[in-house]
Amino acid sequence: MKASNRIRTLTGTGDDGWGLFLRARAMKAAGEPVLELTIGEHDIPTDPRILAAMTASARGGHTGYAAVPGIPALRDAVAARLTERTGVPTSRDNVLITPGGQAGLFAAHHAACDEGDRALFIDPYYATYPATIRSVGAVPVPVQAVPEDGFQPQETALAAAAPGAKSLLINSPNNPTGVVYTPETLAGIARVACDHGLWLISDEVYDTQVWQGAHISPRALPGMAGRTLVVGSLSKSHAMTGSRLGWVVGPAEVIAHMITLATHTTYGVPGYIQDAGLHALGLGAEFEAGIAAPFLRRREIILTLLAGQQAVRAVPAQGAMYAMLDIRSTGLSGEEFAGRLLEAEKIAVMPGESFGVAAAGHIRVALTLPDDQFGEAANRLIRFANLCAARDGAD
Amino acid sequence: MKASNRIRTLTGTGDDGWGLFLRARAMKAAGEPVLELTIGEHDIPTDPRILAAMTASARGGHTGYAAVPGIPALRDAVAARLTERTGVPTSRDNVLITPGGQAGLFAAHHAACDEGDRALFIDPYYATYPATIRSVGAVPVPVQAVPEDGFQPQETALAAAAPGAKSLLINSPNNPTGVVYTPETLAGIARVACDHGLWLISDEVYDTQVWQGAHISPRALPGMAGRTLVVGSLSKSHAMTGSRLGWVVGPAEVIAHMITLATHTTYGVPGYIQDAGLHALGLGAEFEAGIAAPFLRRREIILTLLAGQQAVRAVPAQGAMYAMLDIRSTGLSGEEFAGRLLEAEKIAVMPGESFGVAAAGHIRVALTLPDDQFGEAANRLIRFANLCAARDGAD
Repeated sequence: MKASNRIRTLTGTGDDGWGLFLRARAMKAAGEPVLELTIGEHDIPTDPRILAAMTASARGGHTGYAAVPGIPALRDAVAARLTERTGVPTSRDNVLITPGGQAGLFAAHHAACDEGDRALFIDPYYATYPATIRSVGAVPVPVQAVPEDGFQPQETALAAAAPGAKSLLINSPNNPTGVVYTPETLAGIARVACDHGLWLISDEVYDTQVWQGAHISPRALPGMAGRTLVVGSLSKSHAMTGSRLGWVVGPAEVIAHMITLATHTTYGVPGYIQDAGLHALGLGAEFEAGIAAPFLRRREIILTLLAGQQAVRAVPAQGAMYAMLDIRSTGLSGEEFAGRLLEAEKIAVMPGESFGVAAAGHIRVALTLPDDQFGEAANRLIRFANLCAARDGAD
Repeated sequence: MKASNRIRTLTGTGDDGWGLFLRARAMKAAGEPVLELTIGEHDIPTDPRILAAMTASARGGHTGYAAVPGIPALRDAVAARLTERTGVPTSRDNVLITPGGQAGLFAAHHAACDEGDRALFIDPYYATYPATIRSVGAVPVPVQAVPEDGFQPQETALAAAAPGAKSLLINSPNNPTGVVYTPETLAGIARVACDHGLWLISDEVYDTQVWQGAHISPRALPGMAGRTLVVGSLSKSHAMTGSRLGWVVGPAEVIAHMITLATHTTYGVPGYIQDAGLHALGLGAEFEAGIAAPFLRRREIILTLLAGQQAVRAVPAQGAMYAMLDIRSTGLSGEEFAGRLLEAEKIAVMPGESFGVAAAGHIRVALTLPDDQFGEAANRLIRFANLCAARDGAD
């Protein structure tokens, strides 16, 4: 029997761009020594102290239904964190704890959009964005941020797409590009949101991974706190990807509606995981810097290797756990290059085309292997690209 | 700024019927000795063996992203369980692991209904049902199952409501009534579903708590496997309410779409919780009977206490962790009776009206206090009802 139209068309008409990732996983499962630089996951497990806090909570009996909005202590801790980071007074009532950042993205779009509403997002984009928008019945509308602008979204392009839209989804530090939005970019975004009455959904899950400049939450900008829904998570900042623990912070009135939504979509988050998350937040900035440090080191490794050659150019990686590389000099698309690299070198990277049209001719390299393996993979990747470029030049 | 129409109207126009529950919780928080017989939660924590399995998994490094559809071993275990219970050959591809049964109810309705579609459900109903339907943009249509029919839904009433509907949500063993649907009821439901092309969403989270008769999954009936989505969970069967671990079982094609939905709404369930759930399922039928046993004992306690008086009559409690009591002889509504009982006796029960209109003049008593406390509370409740009935008779 046929499923709903909405669920059958979640990923649109095309494929979802993860073909290469799946091919690499299949090769690895078949025993081939594939070096994976595809998904944004740490090469370390969750810290034992955080797991000890979880075990203590569960053994202590925190195994029944937890309060649907989140346990008060964790909501307070997230509120304090956001107050500190945005300067906007934030209390428990502004916070919904969610089972991961993705659930926060879904809930935020549910709160912003009705059936058929246009919801803007920036291309290149994290793979789940368009279908997250479709999952609430809204219509995803990409706005391109192009390499020539350093992948910074431009106010003119946003303003052109905004009339009649209900929301705009942004992500800085950005996956896949590694770009951190400038104060000018964020000011332009805020102006468009205010002028066109948009909800701004700000995915800030990489906010502890900033290598150049500073993370600015658009919630902190004038007039924005009442229209911004910040999505956060402990996945990237605390190496807790599998624990599915995140939040949405926004105006209390809309958070109240989102709590009702949570009652009907998840019925809350395990209490012992929330206790673990509370402990994790208490480990402080030094702990978070330690989790981020390997990505900064590997960014330096690849930038050093890229110096003194011309075939591959790095998009300035200002944040997040990725390096976006421009391989257009090879004459190949990102997809072609990634496919050949996987075959020839058994190195898996994500084609830029997996993230929309604006990052065509690029590849995304996740900084997620131990330094020595990462260095080796990066070295081989660059050598391979130079061979391709030389061959292309010789054609 | 205004949230979406859909999220602002999730709970409809009325209140959600949980006023008494919240009042009782506030009294308890203020130090009053309230005996709570409201929500369906065990009076024991999760078994230490299950928590040990979780800890071992987490410490063993299962802290990264788990496969979105669920880990293969748990999907296989659920498939084997459903094969055994329904006789329908079930494989991994028929199973989506969800963060709890509520997430399964949401996903099932998302798969069945588009915006504006009519979705049937049985009144009296578990509190989340109407807004779960609204959360996917569908229109909840109640079909009453009345006390005169022993709260068994009637084929004629279902057939009258079915034209143009997309889905029918049922729940047996039933919350709030404790009724288990008869083979005749289920046959009627199956006929209506087939005749009118409905998806049948079968909430079977109480399937290990059957005191009279046997649980029959409608998925096992002729012609139903291709149109039935079974929602299950470890919450009630294994006292794991807080762990948020459940599933949907259905045709592989629609499960594939629901996996895509899960990618965009939750991004999977913690791997260490899935490992704990796998261990829990391995504890076997004897363990599950042990978790269910207290509810059976307390059912006997209250039935014994009810013998030899006329004011309160029990709806035959065939399953689940509740007793539904008919208090119409008191001349009070369920809401009035529950309110007075809370004030006079500091005993909190759920008014039948919290669950729709069909259970008016009833109260739902959760069998969730230790036996001695439960017996005392039931005794005082019955005495209080008899006083009310005598007073009503004297008016």
